[in-house]
Amino acid sequence: MSYAISMDDIRSAAAQIKGAAVRTPLLEHPALNDAVGGRVFIKPENLQRIGAFKFRGAYNRLSRLTDAEKARGVVAFSSGNHAQGVAKAAEMLGIKATIVMPEDAPKLKLANTRSYGAEVVLYDRYNEDREEVAKRVVGDSGATVVPPYNDPYIMAGQGTVGLEIAEDLKNLGLTPDQTLVNCGGGGLASGTFLALHDAFPTMTGYAVEPEEFDDVTRSLKSGVIEKVDFGARSVCDALLTPSAGDLTFPILKDIGIQGVTVSDEEAMAAVRFAAISLKLVTEPGGAAALAALLAGKVEVEGKVTVIVLSGGNIEPEMLASCVGNAQ
Amino acid sequence: MSYAISMDDIRSAAAQIKGAAVRTPLLEHPALNDAVGGRVFIKPENLQRIGAFKFRGAYNRLSRLTDAEKARGVVAFSSGNHAQGVAKAAEMLGIKATIVMPEDAPKLKLANTRSYGAEVVLYDRYNEDREEVAKRVVGDSGATVVPPYNDPYIMAGQGTVGLEIAEDLKNLGLTPDQTLVNCGGGGLASGTFLALHDAFPTMTGYAVEPEEFDDVTRSLKSGVIEKVDFGARSVCDALLTPSAGDLTFPILKDIGIQGVTVSDEEAMAAVRFAAISLKLVTEPGGAAALAALLAGKVEVEGKVTVIVLSGGNIEPEMLASCVGNAQ
Repeated sequence: MSYAISMDDIRSAAAQIKGAAVRTPLLEHPALNDAVGGRVFIKPENLQRIGAFKFRGAYNRLSRLTDAEKARGVVAFSSGNHAQGVAKAAEMLGIKATIVMPEDAPKLKLANTRSYGAEVVLYDRYNEDREEVAKRVVGDSGATVVPPYNDPYIMAGQGTVGLEIAEDLKNLGLTPDQTLVNCGGGGLASGTFLALHDAFPTMTGYAVEPEEFDDVTRSLKSGVIEKVDFGARSVCDALLTPSAGDLTFPILKDIGIQGVTVSDEEAMAAVRFAAISLKLVTEPGGAAALAALLAGKVEVEGKVTVIVLSGGNIEPEMLASCVGNAQ
Repeated sequence: MSYAISMDDIRSAAAQIKGAAVRTPLLEHPALNDAVGGRVFIKPENLQRIGAFKFRGAYNRLSRLTDAEKARGVVAFSSGNHAQGVAKAAEMLGIKATIVMPEDAPKLKLANTRSYGAEVVLYDRYNEDREEVAKRVVGDSGATVVPPYNDPYIMAGQGTVGLEIAEDLKNLGLTPDQTLVNCGGGGLASGTFLALHDAFPTMTGYAVEPEEFDDVTRSLKSGVIEKVDFGARSVCDALLTPSAGDLTFPILKDIGIQGVTVSDEEAMAAVRFAAISLKLVTEPGGAAALAALLAGKVEVEGKVTVIVLSGGNIEPEMLASCVGNAQ
C-alpha cells in the first residue's frame, strides 16, 4: 500500500524538528492507573512548544520551503493550535505568517498566535465562506497556504509523536495493546498510528472524537469519508473539523483504526482529572482520549494502553471553571 | 566530613523506591527559557505519586521498618504532603498509619490522606502543643513516628531527586551552573544538593523559602540554625517549618548553599505561569523555585539552571483563583 507518507518521511521529520520541538517524555501516573484499573502511558504533548503537538508538523512543513517560498510568506487557517504552530515555526524560521482565525477562537489562542509575531485575520466561521476569505488573504502575494492536516509534511511531523512513543516503549521492553489518539482531521492520528503500527503491528488503535464531530468514527465504519452534521458544536475546539482528509483517512482505514466518541461533559471531567490528579493542564480537545478511558469506553484491565494528551491551550477561565466544579 | 547520609544511602534509597515511586523526567520548556532568558531544566515532582516528592522519603523510611515495627503502625505529623506520602507508603506496605494534621490544612490534602486509608487526627496548630498531641496519639501503641525531614532515610529518599537530575543531565552531556530547591525543613534540599554536589562539585545551590519563613536563609548566613519568627504566615503551606533540622542543616551549610526568598504574590504568579504557559499544576510551595526565577532573583542568562517543582497538591479553588486572575 502506498500512502501520502512513509516511515522514512516520519524519520526525516524527526531529524528536521530535532532541537526545535520538545522531545516530550512518556509518563506513567499511578493515579491514572488506579482510576482506570490498567497500565496507561501518557504522551504529554501539552508540554510541547506552543502547548500542542501542532508545532511538529508546522515546523517540518515550513522548514522545507525554498528560500523563494519563505520570502513570500505563509498563510494558515486555524481555530487555534495549528495557528500557534505555524506562527511560532514562522517566527523561528524568519518567515512572515498570516493566520486566518475564526473570531470566536479561544482568546488565549488568538493572543498566543499574535505573540509569536503573526498577523491575525479574523472571520465569522458560521456566516463567511472560508474559501472566499482565503482568496482575499492570499491575494496575489504568492504566499504558501499551510494546511492543518491534509499535507504529507504536516502528517509526517505529527507522526514523530508515534515514533517517540515507540522508542520509549521499546526502551521499557513493552508492547502496547492499544493507543488512543484525539482526532480532528486525522493529521496526528494518521502519522502517529502509522509509526506505531510499524513498531507494533498487533496494536489496536482508537481515534477519539467529540460526539457531534464523529465523522471519522462513521467513516471508519462506512469505509468512505463522511462529513460532520451541519450545526455540530463541541467544547473541544481543537477537534472541530468537517471531515478527515483524503491523505489522512486511507491510513486510518487500512490500519484498522476504530472510532470512539466522548461528550463535552466527559471531556471537561477529564480536564479536571488531569489537573487535579495528574497535575497536567489540558484543553478539552486535548483530553478526549483521557476522557474515553475515564468514561470506560475502552477496556484497559490487564492491558498496556497509551494515550496522547494532544494539547493544553485552555482558556484560563475555562480551566478555572473545570477545576472549580465539584467532582 | 560525616553527615547523617552518604551517597551510598541515596543510591540505596533509589533501589528501594524503584517501582514504587515514579521516575520523573527532566523537562525543558521553551516558554520558560524565553521568559527568563536562560536554559532551565525542570524536575517535575508534582508528577510524582501523591503529587509531591514526599513519597520518596516516606517509602524509603517505611520499607526499612522491621516486621514487628510494621505491625505496630506509624504516626506522622504534617500539614499535607508528608501526610500523603506516609499514608500512601503505609497503604502499599500494609502498615496502619495515623496522621496528625493541622485543622487548617488544605482540604485536598486532608481528603487525599484519608483516601489512602490513613486515620487522620486534627489539631489546632496555633493553640495546641504539637508534642502533647504527639504523646496522646502515639500513647503506648509502640507506633513509629515518621519525621518529615530530620531523618536519614527520609533525607536519602528525597535525595533520589538529585540523583535522577544528575543522571539525566549527564545523559544530555550537561553540567548545571545552579539548582534551586524549595526548602522547608531541608529534607529535599539536603538530599538533593548532596547528590548534585557529588555529581557536579562546582554547581551553585539555592534553597528557596517563603519571605516570612526565611529561617534557612538566615541560618546559612549566621552559620547556626535560626528559627522562624512567631506569627509568620505564607500561602506556601508545604514550606511552613519552624527551622531546618540538625541533620539537614550541616549539609546545606558545608556545601555552601545560599538562601533566596519569594513573596506569596510571586509564588502565586509562578503557579499561574506554570499552569498557563508550562501546562503543569503546582502548589505555591512547590512553585517557589520557579517564582524565584520568574522574579529575577537569580541570574540565569547564559547559564544552565535546574529547578525542582516539588509538589502540585493545590486546592482546586486556589488553582482556579490563580489562573483566573489576569496576568
